[in-house]
Amino acid sequence: MTQSTLARSWIASANGHSDFPLQNLPLGVFSLAGSTPRSGVAIGDHILDLEAGLAAGLFEGQAKVAVEATLGGTLNALFALGRRARVALRERLIELFVEGSTLRAKIEAQSASLLPLAADCTMHLPARVGDYTDFYVGIEHAKNVGKLFRPDNPLLPNYKYVPIGYHGRASTLRASGTEVRRPKGQTLPAGQTEPSFGPCARLDYELELGIWIGQGNEMGDAIPVSEAGEHIAGFCLLNDWSARDIQAWEYQPLGPFLSKSFITSISPWVVTAEALEPFRRAQPQRPEGDPQPLAYLLDEQDQATGALDIELEVLLLTQAMREQNLAPHRLGLSNTLNMYWTAAQLVTHHSVNGCQLQAGDLFGSGTLSGPERSQLGSLLELTEGGKHPVELASGEVRKFLEDGDEIILRARCTRDGFAPIGFGECRGKVIAAR
Amino acid sequence: MTQSTLARSWIASANGHSDFPLQNLPLGVFSLAGSTPRSGVAIGDHILDLEAGLAAGLFEGQAKVAVEATLGGTLNALFALGRRARVALRERLIELFVEGSTLRAKIEAQSASLLPLAADCTMHLPARVGDYTDFYVGIEHAKNVGKLFRPDNPLLPNYKYVPIGYHGRASTLRASGTEVRRPKGQTLPAGQTEPSFGPCARLDYELELGIWIGQGNEMGDAIPVSEAGEHIAGFCLLNDWSARDIQAWEYQPLGPFLSKSFITSISPWVVTAEALEPFRRAQPQRPEGDPQPLAYLLDEQDQATGALDIELEVLLLTQAMREQNLAPHRLGLSNTLNMYWTAAQLVTHHSVNGCQLQAGDLFGSGTLSGPERSQLGSLLELTEGGKHPVELASGEVRKFLEDGDEIILRARCTRDGFAPIGFGECRGKVIAAR
Repeated sequence: MTQSTLARSWIASANGHSDFPLQNLPLGVFSLAGSTPRSGVAIGDHILDLEAGLAAGLFEGQAKVAVEATLGGTLNALFALGRRARVALRERLIELFVEGSTLRAKIEAQSASLLPLAADCTMHLPARVGDYTDFYVGIEHAKNVGKLFRPDNPLLPNYKYVPIGYHGRASTLRASGTEVRRPKGQTLPAGQTEPSFGPCARLDYELELGIWIGQGNEMGDAIPVSEAGEHIAGFCLLNDWSARDIQAWEYQPLGPFLSKSFITSISPWVVTAEALEPFRRAQPQRPEGDPQPLAYLLDEQDQATGALDIELEVLLLTQAMREQNLAPHRLGLSNTLNMYWTAAQLVTHHSVNGCQLQAGDLFGSGTLSGPERSQLGSLLELTEGGKHPVELASGEVRKFLEDGDEIILRARCTRDGFAPIGFGECRGKVIAAR
Repeated sequence: MTQSTLARSWIASANGHSDFPLQNLPLGVFSLAGSTPRSGVAIGDHILDLEAGLAAGLFEGQAKVAVEATLGGTLNALFALGRRARVALRERLIELFVEGSTLRAKIEAQSASLLPLAADCTMHLPARVGDYTDFYVGIEHAKNVGKLFRPDNPLLPNYKYVPIGYHGRASTLRASGTEVRRPKGQTLPAGQTEPSFGPCARLDYELELGIWIGQGNEMGDAIPVSEAGEHIAGFCLLNDWSARDIQAWEYQPLGPFLSKSFITSISPWVVTAEALEPFRRAQPQRPEGDPQPLAYLLDEQDQATGALDIELEVLLLTQAMREQNLAPHRLGLSNTLNMYWTAAQLVTHHSVNGCQLQAGDLFGSGTLSGPERSQLGSLLELTEGGKHPVELASGEVRKFLEDGDEIILRARCTRDGFAPIGFGECRGKVIAAR
């Protein structure tokens, strides 16, 4: 029952084109006007309020333990329980919502527990993030960015050995829908030797996969790659908003700092590791001549099934497009198969020095561009550093983002014989600098 | 009464050479065997248990509000209250402990509230750190490290404009006394083109000042430098343990990551901003030819009083030295006047892009070396990258740290007419890789 199938739900909106069919059942934290945040599960265009469901007696045994861990408005405690609790909850949710469920009447009698996923429902961060780490494992992105600086030698010598990453800012992680205030900062204008201070003029997005850490480890204990999958609770979309002009001036020698820390947006629904099981793939063959990963990063099972086949999309909606009723413009369509390392390899690398991971930590994958122009995950790549503007149906052009521009990330998994699942959206609209 | 004076305490051990005289009153979180962590104040060789003191009726008004915010085993809520609450608490503590206090009998009658600061008292992190940021504002260190790579041009062009910093790992911050397990990781051995995996062979310390953030800001709101001091709760010592061989291989292009995240040690007592008032100084004159800070970092008052005069010391105690009963070897004696930017400038720079700071966030200053060889804050500098070993009284030499080596950081403030205050110690002993 935990494997995806083509089973349908008695909730009609969950069947067909919903991101949230019976096979997905993502977890999130929501609030209605005036109420405190509560945990829920999305199905079709509805949310099951887990606390109300618990009060209505919908859960028992391990599933009840799992739901009790979601009380209090964050999923950290559930993540800490690990896979077994998530699986028990998932199995029970499938029993509750599958077409023909004998429990339908019981749920429908509890109008408080099944709520419309409507505009008056605010989504929050699903967990309190202790630490947020941003990786750089989209190799096409790394090549594209490297080419702007080093045309003949875009990848640094460590790239194919080290899953490159850096610590990000946890305090400014925000759920989809939060406005993105244009940051101010120091930049070095072209041709100048002294910096200026002012609003960012090269504001960009980055299309990334987010990885939620489940059970953590003690400081000093590395997580073997064969066990790393057990430490991953689920996934989301992540927009690593980037101020390219601030970044260029500040990042030597210690890496990006204020160019990233003004906000990072994520999609609020945690698509569990279990929901993604059918969309696991063999890690793509490394190109001829690429080195094998060092032994601590290699596991046969992970090589065979550790990659993910998730289609990723990034769209732009400008103020003029909204006024002209134009559909969002697709800037890129990519896939998580562009990750040079698996999620399990990231967990293992991160902990190999003894670094403690904790339930609710978040990883970003790094920008997941593909090799084609239609598959790029940032404007920096798409416009080659602002040299070639993107043309929009509204008659506008963009080198970088302007105030009023909204970026929309979407993701979807499809496979013959399995119900497709989606991630919901990660949206953010740019507003003027203060 | 909040200003430091030469007043004495009726607690005899607080007078004379104690780090914790009546004028210091640092805040911390401690536990006795088997009990949960509680907040306390150090005075001489004693701790005032704030919860027990509250129960005994020692606090009222604003001071009581402040103490109530320390319940629960972290100082985050007290930090969030800002300066006024800290000052009220400090004034009351001085009333309680000053020589001739009419409250002495009341305190002594409550044996549970005044505890010996003894070996069975375990110190904890004083706050839950939401985000930890490590700066790089020790200009002599930046020059020394830069010289190893670029002898003719050690400082990058941004250094004198941007208070350089990067996000650090919060989950592996630990209080003094926690053992430091030698990390494993990827390194590129000299002369090789492919990396190896194994225990770090170039383990180092870094002598830093820690800065505790008090009241935070909302995302999007920058903190002006004229107000930044109000957002600083206090200070500690910080050892930014560094794996130099891992760092050299991993840090391009996104900065240090696993070379730092295995542990960061801090001294557990928060020396408040108020206790340090007498040791504030004018920001040292920038050398001729250095640029003026950009306007957003400049404030007349901060330039006049924003620097700190704290003497910093780092010592080494090896296993052989312990066996021979030798005193720790002083590796360096420096001062926080080597900071190129003030603490207020760091707060302002960090938030200028709208980044949210939160009560209990921690900053590291970066390694605070002085210009002389006796003032260096890391072995990387002292041995010039391992080329010139340090000779110890035990007959041993050190290029980098060996298992069993303990690093001890100390700090002390002195000024004519004022009682000297200290920070307590930040200790960490290296243990073998797993």
